[in-house]
Amino acid sequence: MRCAVVAVGTELLLGQIVDTNSSWIGERLAASGIDSLVQYKVGDNHARIVSIVDRALQEADAVIMCGGLGPTHDDLTRDAIAEVMGVVLRHDEGVAETIRSMFSSRGRRMPDNNLRQALVPDGATIIPQTRGTAPGLVCPVGDKVIYAVPGVPHEMYDMMERVILPDLRRRNGDSGVIVSRVIRTWGESESGLNERLDRVIAELEERGNPTLAFLASGWEGLKVRLTAKGATDGEARELLEEWEERVLDEVGDFVFGYDDDNMEAVVIKRMSELGLSLAIAESVTGGLVSGRLTTIPGASQVLRGSVVSYASAVKHDLLGVPEGPVVSESAAIAMADGVRRLLGTDIGLSLTGVAGPSEQDGQPVGTLWVGLSREGVTTMAAHLRLPGQRDPMRQMAVISALDLLRRTLD
Amino acid sequence: MRCAVVAVGTELLLGQIVDTNSSWIGERLAASGIDSLVQYKVGDNHARIVSIVDRALQEADAVIMCGGLGPTHDDLTRDAIAEVMGVVLRHDEGVAETIRSMFSSRGRRMPDNNLRQALVPDGATIIPQTRGTAPGLVCPVGDKVIYAVPGVPHEMYDMMERVILPDLRRRNGDSGVIVSRVIRTWGESESGLNERLDRVIAELEERGNPTLAFLASGWEGLKVRLTAKGATDGEARELLEEWEERVLDEVGDFVFGYDDDNMEAVVIKRMSELGLSLAIAESVTGGLVSGRLTTIPGASQVLRGSVVSYASAVKHDLLGVPEGPVVSESAAIAMADGVRRLLGTDIGLSLTGVAGPSEQDGQPVGTLWVGLSREGVTTMAAHLRLPGQRDPMRQMAVISALDLLRRTLD
Repeated sequence: MRCAVVAVGTELLLGQIVDTNSSWIGERLAASGIDSLVQYKVGDNHARIVSIVDRALQEADAVIMCGGLGPTHDDLTRDAIAEVMGVVLRHDEGVAETIRSMFSSRGRRMPDNNLRQALVPDGATIIPQTRGTAPGLVCPVGDKVIYAVPGVPHEMYDMMERVILPDLRRRNGDSGVIVSRVIRTWGESESGLNERLDRVIAELEERGNPTLAFLASGWEGLKVRLTAKGATDGEARELLEEWEERVLDEVGDFVFGYDDDNMEAVVIKRMSELGLSLAIAESVTGGLVSGRLTTIPGASQVLRGSVVSYASAVKHDLLGVPEGPVVSESAAIAMADGVRRLLGTDIGLSLTGVAGPSEQDGQPVGTLWVGLSREGVTTMAAHLRLPGQRDPMRQMAVISALDLLRRTLD
Repeated sequence: MRCAVVAVGTELLLGQIVDTNSSWIGERLAASGIDSLVQYKVGDNHARIVSIVDRALQEADAVIMCGGLGPTHDDLTRDAIAEVMGVVLRHDEGVAETIRSMFSSRGRRMPDNNLRQALVPDGATIIPQTRGTAPGLVCPVGDKVIYAVPGVPHEMYDMMERVILPDLRRRNGDSGVIVSRVIRTWGESESGLNERLDRVIAELEERGNPTLAFLASGWEGLKVRLTAKGATDGEARELLEEWEERVLDEVGDFVFGYDDDNMEAVVIKRMSELGLSLAIAESVTGGLVSGRLTTIPGASQVLRGSVVSYASAVKHDLLGVPEGPVVSESAAIAMADGVRRLLGTDIGLSLTGVAGPSEQDGQPVGTLWVGLSREGVTTMAAHLRLPGQRDPMRQMAVISALDLLRRTLD
């Protein structure tokens, strides 16, 4: 089963929007065992869209079209599919009624333009819309198929997961079930994880099921994805659990979470459970650690506040850091102690380091000290050497400091 | 002149990397007056690459290939181009020597693999590499052309700007010069700017030169790009200045910078010039304002530090905010005053608001109060209603608060 993706929209070709939809679709196809043949971006031009889809359909078994289902005159996907299928567009009153009721539930009248979204190529079936006004389309062409989904990401995700991926897998002869699990790690490089998982990977490659893939994701950490197929959901999950166990045996020390758990969410959840409060003193990261933690709704249960002590005088005056070099073990410890006392929390976390462009206190760019202070427990600091560019260094500092905090919570 | 882009790499099809290179190329082609016909993503498979490039060359006048120029066995762009051209690959000793000297300058021996990067399709010319080991290629095919550039973004940018865009413009018969200017705005919506520039846009559409485009860029603000062509650099720049003036007449109130100046850089630069120091009290943004400002090297000249007063008690105890609702004008003013005094700076900036998921103090999600305190000057606060989703709300809050601060610096 070979699948092509056609992303439609002049704004994509002009670079006004980055096409993240196709990447997402490619990732989901791979996880579903469908071969990604090629991906196209084409502008809002009827003849060009028809020619690309025609060609895509010659070489692939299925074509997923993304975008061009809106209500305006330059939304051309419906017309292009009808031409490729050699059929007319028919008005679907059920779709029109759904769109009308979406408008009326918001107290608005449906503009006539939106009736365009109720046009369906003859012979196609619709994918009912649940999040926007445009339905998706499933359009058979001989023994092949064209799918069309809106370009709005959350509308597209929904239709892919609900209808298209299951349909592709059925066409692919996969009567079974695919389940996957993302194991999220921090503290070891991709090549390091690869080496530790050497034997597991060799065995998996021989078996072919489950599959294992690495995804480096910046300050989201390094992800290991296991994807298992089985005749039943139970069988697939059993396989997944067996091999997850094998992976954890080798690299469990670096695992902080699963699937959508990011480091911030894991730290906030664990501290909430333990009823612990947190204060942070940030220097090199300038507020980014607090900024990331507060992306999590519910962070206010844990984080009382932070002091960004960018100037050395603020470290001395407000946090009580003694005079001397501020990128050092003793400064990190004093900052963590100081902010914990200042804000009256159970735990104080601190970061001081050098993000560049030039060295500081004789310490090279990339140096990070993380301090951790907890009432009644020995205060500690850790030293890390991170990459030397300013932005990556600061991002790595954020996840590294949160990981250090997380490790003390077990 | 119609141009196609072929991005090469299985990791792109699998969604492990988002193809931002093609978007960047599309944006630069548009700014150079070259028509973007179609963009492809193809995996590391010799036959598929050849078939895509063959086809791209039939429909377009020029094909830009991006990626697949590395030293390993799955870097296939050179071989594919040679097959499309119907020529052999020849060893270029000049290229090999350049690569060898790059390695030896870092005290390392060149692995034999890298000799693959010295292979050049017969009849092609190289684009000398200045940032990585792979040279680019200019490969004539009849009266058409294939360019190849590395997939590493900064290597690709360099070769595009230095060689490929000028060569495309020459082939396009543009003997003149293209210059462009990005006018960066905040405080008015895209449709609002569009309306204010109504007459200017109509005149420009009639003239065709310069062109004007909007680029919505999140917390980078809303960009207006003017692109002018002229017979000489002087002529193009004169035209650009004339129309920039016209744009500023209509929307000058919303302009904070030009080209690469982001809001953070503009604020830091202006405060540095004025010799003013800054302290920030953040609640709803949780440290993001400070985190953004400190992306700018040199922020330490201005920003002494911040207090993230996430818990109400921290607002009361550390910043001296009186008891009462903390999402209010009086709380914003007290926070700005309090942090300015606590850190001993010229200016105090504060943000308090509701990012959701639920309302707070009877204020709806999206509410923002920004406070500003300056020694000897009346302290003020501004009220804004921002979009209701947590992440966009917080990002809009950051740029809105910095813009408010910037406006008081004139």
